[in-house]
Amino acid sequence: MVSKVADEPQLLSKKAGCNSHGQDSSYFLGWEEFEKNPFDAVANPGGIIQMGLAENQLSFDLVEDWLEKNPDALGLRRGGKSVFRELALFQDYHGLPAFKNALARFMSEQRGYRVAFDPSNIVFTAGATSANEALMFCLADQGDAFLIPTPYYPGFDRDLKWRTGAEIVPVHCTSANGFRVTRAALDDAYRRAQKRRLRVKGVLITNPSNPLGTAVPRADLEMIVDFVAAKGIHLISDEIYSGTAFSSEPGFVSVLEVLAARRPLAADYLALDDRVHVVYSLSKDLGLPGFRVGAIYSSNPAVVSAATKMSSFGLVSSQTQYLLAALLGDKDFTRGYLAENKRRIKERRDQLVDGLKAIGIGCLESDAGLFCWVDMGHLMHSRSFEGEMSLWKKVVFDVGLNISPGSSCHCSEPGWFRVCFANMSAKTLDVAMQRLGDFVEKIRKATTGVGALRRAAAVPARTMSCPLAANMKWALRLTPLSADRKAER
Amino acid sequence: MVSKVADEPQLLSKKAGCNSHGQDSSYFLGWEEFEKNPFDAVANPGGIIQMGLAENQLSFDLVEDWLEKNPDALGLRRGGKSVFRELALFQDYHGLPAFKNALARFMSEQRGYRVAFDPSNIVFTAGATSANEALMFCLADQGDAFLIPTPYYPGFDRDLKWRTGAEIVPVHCTSANGFRVTRAALDDAYRRAQKRRLRVKGVLITNPSNPLGTAVPRADLEMIVDFVAAKGIHLISDEIYSGTAFSSEPGFVSVLEVLAARRPLAADYLALDDRVHVVYSLSKDLGLPGFRVGAIYSSNPAVVSAATKMSSFGLVSSQTQYLLAALLGDKDFTRGYLAENKRRIKERRDQLVDGLKAIGIGCLESDAGLFCWVDMGHLMHSRSFEGEMSLWKKVVFDVGLNISPGSSCHCSEPGWFRVCFANMSAKTLDVAMQRLGDFVEKIRKATTGVGALRRAAAVPARTMSCPLAANMKWALRLTPLSADRKAER
Repeated sequence: MVSKVADEPQLLSKKAGCNSHGQDSSYFLGWEEFEKNPFDAVANPGGIIQMGLAENQLSFDLVEDWLEKNPDALGLRRGGKSVFRELALFQDYHGLPAFKNALARFMSEQRGYRVAFDPSNIVFTAGATSANEALMFCLADQGDAFLIPTPYYPGFDRDLKWRTGAEIVPVHCTSANGFRVTRAALDDAYRRAQKRRLRVKGVLITNPSNPLGTAVPRADLEMIVDFVAAKGIHLISDEIYSGTAFSSEPGFVSVLEVLAARRPLAADYLALDDRVHVVYSLSKDLGLPGFRVGAIYSSNPAVVSAATKMSSFGLVSSQTQYLLAALLGDKDFTRGYLAENKRRIKERRDQLVDGLKAIGIGCLESDAGLFCWVDMGHLMHSRSFEGEMSLWKKVVFDVGLNISPGSSCHCSEPGWFRVCFANMSAKTLDVAMQRLGDFVEKIRKATTGVGALRRAAAVPARTMSCPLAANMKWALRLTPLSADRKAER
Repeated sequence: MVSKVADEPQLLSKKAGCNSHGQDSSYFLGWEEFEKNPFDAVANPGGIIQMGLAENQLSFDLVEDWLEKNPDALGLRRGGKSVFRELALFQDYHGLPAFKNALARFMSEQRGYRVAFDPSNIVFTAGATSANEALMFCLADQGDAFLIPTPYYPGFDRDLKWRTGAEIVPVHCTSANGFRVTRAALDDAYRRAQKRRLRVKGVLITNPSNPLGTAVPRADLEMIVDFVAAKGIHLISDEIYSGTAFSSEPGFVSVLEVLAARRPLAADYLALDDRVHVVYSLSKDLGLPGFRVGAIYSSNPAVVSAATKMSSFGLVSSQTQYLLAALLGDKDFTRGYLAENKRRIKERRDQLVDGLKAIGIGCLESDAGLFCWVDMGHLMHSRSFEGEMSLWKKVVFDVGLNISPGSSCHCSEPGWFRVCFANMSAKTLDVAMQRLGDFVEKIRKATTGVGALRRAAAVPARTMSCPLAANMKWALRLTPLSADRKAER
């Protein structure tokens, strides 16, 4: 059959036709390969291991135990009586009050009760994807820009830009300081935006960072808040990995804590308070991406009002709200879950880091997330994005690991990869490490400069330098990694 | 506290600031009044009866019976084993295959199996609200227009225009032919759009119509399809009330049936096939607005592809998909439900129509929907939109019934009201009719021309003429009725 659409492209919108959703990218082949040939310890031990998916599968048993003991939560009952009718009809876009209260408390608990959350400042959305887009619709007009430190979550190109017409201007961070955001990098990005005649409406950070797996240090948050205060712009802090931050020292600090600490000092605190917005979700911390629960937290009444109206386009199912109100309303459960989940994440992350170290691969020191930011620059045939792509293809096709290349995250230095560890068993992670070890060994044998390879791998990750980084541009225009079929990664 | 936002309106987007979402309208006072003082037969018998909400509460017992017999659907079990993990992680934006298959069959069953639905042409969305907006994002760029017959669902101003920048051009229908769409009215709207230099991208109809409560006759669908074929534009048919069409003769005809019948005849059938899109939802037919289940059905692969990617912004909870896959997959249930639900809707509608008739109020002859389109023009002090607003306020405040004035639906003739009947018990409907009867009696006594009033009320609804209609303009610029808190009505 001939293509029916190609003849009349003008009949669809520009959005439908363009690729700025970024989901038809070259990286898709890694996912395709995985889907054609997924690893299974018994049925398909030679298959591809999925390490490109930031899923948290480590603590389902804790939730299952709770569900077993609390059958009314799934059964939609209260005191033995069905609440099905009530929920079936419940479409108040302010959400179930019980769920809002429970989520507010849970978010506060995650931040060690150092900040309080006002339930009336929460807007529910069908996942963080929807929360980020709604905030963009609220804060930016077509052609307005947000500054985002690199490397960043590839999905942002779709979530923030595609339908809103907003632009992303990258804030280039480098391995020289462990990819921390600096004032100079922010100023540089701001200048580049101005050159492009874009109006900068704000900065968006992920804290803990996806893909770095690191919580943003308090000093950096202070600096970023100073920057947005000085420029009179917004700050969006996407904190969907806050519950994965496993280190207590220094640990995860929410931008809201930084803000709370400034209030008595800053003359502009009211205006700042109005311009800082937090995005949250239960997809990562509770491992529930399928349930589509996201939230915006803002103290700006106009943003809360507009975002609440926008939430009509992606409300959370009342059935799911009811279940989660009960789950998060159980303080004994949340206390136990948060602690145990972090312990398991750290354990699995240590397994990955130790495994990599044993085969001479370093990574950025992490304290959060469901992944590590791994440096494999020394395994590339050239320190370039071509070299990175070539290595990546080998890792996918020959080694059988679907990891995410840094270029998909707009990283400005080639050679870095995001490697996920929480979506598989410890045994599968062992298999992955074994495969990678064999691969490194093969390269080592093939390489004459064995000593050089070893020395490169031994450079501490935080200070690892990248000689070509300064010359790197976005000339490759790689569309971001975004698997087909998946809403978030 | 001083307003923190008013000082810096330029910091938010134009969308956040503007009122084109239409939810801060003057009609809100009817909802406010209802929420302050809701009717309850025992606790608050003098309260306001909500007749502005198109909820289907008539058949919950059928669903509840099914849930009782099928506990695994809510309990997330299959063959005794929990599928919680699987669902928690399921975020494939193509949806659960079992749900897609079940919905495709259910949609076919609703259309008497006269058309088949290909599951791969379905895109799930978090409600019809989201489906309609996504289609607009796919088909229209900023400033492109869709023609929509009036009166239309007030929420369209938010759903179709607010974030997309698309425009609605009303196709003015009148009581002279029972508000049926004519070719002349379509041509007139098309011309007006051209005058405004808007590019017309399509026509959007609701079938069965909200607020008319009528299925669109086959001949009218043929005419509309001819029109979009001639103009080379799209047709969106919002069929979310298809399961409420209670008459078998002539009954509900889907645009897809009309299309299927044309195929062998029309040379342009392929192109037409690509440009006709159906919106569906389970909010009305199954009474499940809280569960947020909507769908787009399109045979255009580019639209399906783009809309599927957009569905990331409003996916249906996997928990809810699992439940509904089981419910709709049970053919015995759906057959019984569809028949009994329609029987109950007709019964309740007859109660309303008979009650109105007894007090001299006529309405458009309906065969679908959860409401009737009621003519109260003869009760107004003047045949104008001021008269309509004045009567409406009396009905809300004095009579205690929150109904929807036609102007909120962009009706071009004053005096019509949408009156919902399926969100209350038969007894409550009796109370409402009693109140309205007392009100009409009071007016009759106060009016000297009693005979005139009676004669006006006795004119058959379908041919009821409105002397001032021709002069009516949208000068009032009334923002549409849209209750705060509710996603859909």
